[in-house]
Amino acid sequence: MRAWYFAERPEGEPTLDSFELRETERPTPRGGELLVRVRYLSVDPYMRGRMRDSESYAAPWDVGDVLRGHVVGEVVESEHDGYEAGDFVTGRGTWAEYSVLDGDGHDTTPVNPAVADLPAYLGILGMPGRTAYFGLLDVGDPQAGDTVVVSGAAGAVGSTVGQIAALNGCRVVGFAGTDEKTAWLTDDLGFDAAINYETTDDYGAALDDAAPGGVDVYFDNVGGPITDAVFTKLNLDARVAVCGQIAHYNDEQVPTGPRKLPLLIASRAKVEGLLVGDYAPRFDVARERLERWVSAGAIAHRETVVDGLENAPDAFLGLFSGDNVGKQVVRVSE
Amino acid sequence: MRAWYFAERPEGEPTLDSFELRETERPTPRGGELLVRVRYLSVDPYMRGRMRDSESYAAPWDVGDVLRGHVVGEVVESEHDGYEAGDFVTGRGTWAEYSVLDGDGHDTTPVNPAVADLPAYLGILGMPGRTAYFGLLDVGDPQAGDTVVVSGAAGAVGSTVGQIAALNGCRVVGFAGTDEKTAWLTDDLGFDAAINYETTDDYGAALDDAAPGGVDVYFDNVGGPITDAVFTKLNLDARVAVCGQIAHYNDEQVPTGPRKLPLLIASRAKVEGLLVGDYAPRFDVARERLERWVSAGAIAHRETVVDGLENAPDAFLGLFSGDNVGKQVVRVSE
Repeated sequence: MRAWYFAERPEGEPTLDSFELRETERPTPRGGELLVRVRYLSVDPYMRGRMRDSESYAAPWDVGDVLRGHVVGEVVESEHDGYEAGDFVTGRGTWAEYSVLDGDGHDTTPVNPAVADLPAYLGILGMPGRTAYFGLLDVGDPQAGDTVVVSGAAGAVGSTVGQIAALNGCRVVGFAGTDEKTAWLTDDLGFDAAINYETTDDYGAALDDAAPGGVDVYFDNVGGPITDAVFTKLNLDARVAVCGQIAHYNDEQVPTGPRKLPLLIASRAKVEGLLVGDYAPRFDVARERLERWVSAGAIAHRETVVDGLENAPDAFLGLFSGDNVGKQVVRVSE
Repeated sequence: MRAWYFAERPEGEPTLDSFELRETERPTPRGGELLVRVRYLSVDPYMRGRMRDSESYAAPWDVGDVLRGHVVGEVVESEHDGYEAGDFVTGRGTWAEYSVLDGDGHDTTPVNPAVADLPAYLGILGMPGRTAYFGLLDVGDPQAGDTVVVSGAAGAVGSTVGQIAALNGCRVVGFAGTDEKTAWLTDDLGFDAAINYETTDDYGAALDDAAPGGVDVYFDNVGGPITDAVFTKLNLDARVAVCGQIAHYNDEQVPTGPRKLPLLIASRAKVEGLLVGDYAPRFDVARERLERWVSAGAIAHRETVVDGLENAPDAFLGLFSGDNVGKQVVRVSE
């Protein structure tokens, strides 16, 4: 089978040089494991962190390792009582045609085709959906009537955050990088306002228009100048969930910017980093709730599909130029 | 009587030009108020914020206003049932020989000379002590065995924070700006380590020595490069209480520095601004607890006294060069 390997550590913006497609043996599942024929694999911004040679929230990839990530596919061989051949399942796998999944892993869960197509299980019904769910509800703690601002709002996480906020009676404002994306947010997802950060000069003025009552919750996927502007608009007792900082993932030096701590005294805002893995004991709650919302049509979702395992690195690199609307996935097999 | 008035708004570092000493009428207390002969008045870093022409957590002073702040003194005329002439009391007053205090104000409280001398009621038993109490215990949430780092550790707030942390079974590390101060922290106050930030080049290396297990709680009074270094040492689920940012109070432009939000994802740290006024409903709890600790000798305190109302502006300006050890007060009358 074919699988992608980590060929070299990038400096700054990654290129295709970091990836190598090889022919390799199909892996064999051991006790408790599943062999899955991969239908779709997920590329996610956090993977940039795994390319660094330093401990962080995700263990670094070693050069020569097979690339890892979430997949969805069909069980072809099961060594776990809960699954049998022919079942569809999602979990932590590899960028490959076949992956071995831990049947008991926190991320491993059956796919219910009645709820949504397979790619959704890498997005709204997968890790990004759970990140949105816990990040917004636990860290952001939105109250009806609050104004919630989301950066990276048209991405897999951001688009879910905004919709859950709207369900909770919040005014929702999103930042995204194309008019197609901002139209999707306001026309299809129920955002109250959306700001195209590529065509807007003054983010502060745009926020004054879009969030005239100030910002109660900021869900940050991006960092950089958008975040700088939002911090100046935080209301008393505002909450900031720091989920991602994609603007800085390719920085080789520690990035600098306006200091934010002085602003926190006036606002008494709370700023908190979040990582979805911390919520593993409650993943089932999020899954059930998200499946119900999706089934009922209360929350929409969208996936951007790149065809072919051979194009997985391109799909990953495209995340940093905002190519994706909604969740970026790679179709590996039909 | 004599009183200090706000003469002009400073740009950058304040000078004596912002202050004008005038002869004025002794004020008259109305219903619920007390006329107090001021013995000591408090100068505090937050007052720099009141000199700006912008809304913040403390209302701005208008040019021509009498300067306001906490005082301690003797009641000479009472229009409040709870106090009578001859009582000693502390509360919000003015930089003047006589002040009118609101007998029902959250900050107004009788002085118990059996617990401590008058100046302590502007420090450990006053607003700074309450700030330390709520900021550390509510925002910092220290657990026995945690490492607590305090900047501005030899100031009124910081010196109290470190001692309360030590009482709670924490390892305590303080940053201060002279060897006299660091010696006070470790020899008299029970800090486990203290770093002289004026004579130390590499704060990160100094922290590796002083806090080898990383930082669980950071109580920040200062901002700037000390804070930059501490943020790189935050442990998983660390808490940061942003109490003050004295390094930036005189900045005319928005200060810049290393971006910190990317660090919060790995640490899942929580960073929160605090203002003691938010805890007004629980001030009595803090007062009682702090008086008990001081009476029992469990917490030490120190005040730096400048003599004479005429020297109050100098005492205030000295806060920005770290002239004070412990609480800076001005003796107005014997």
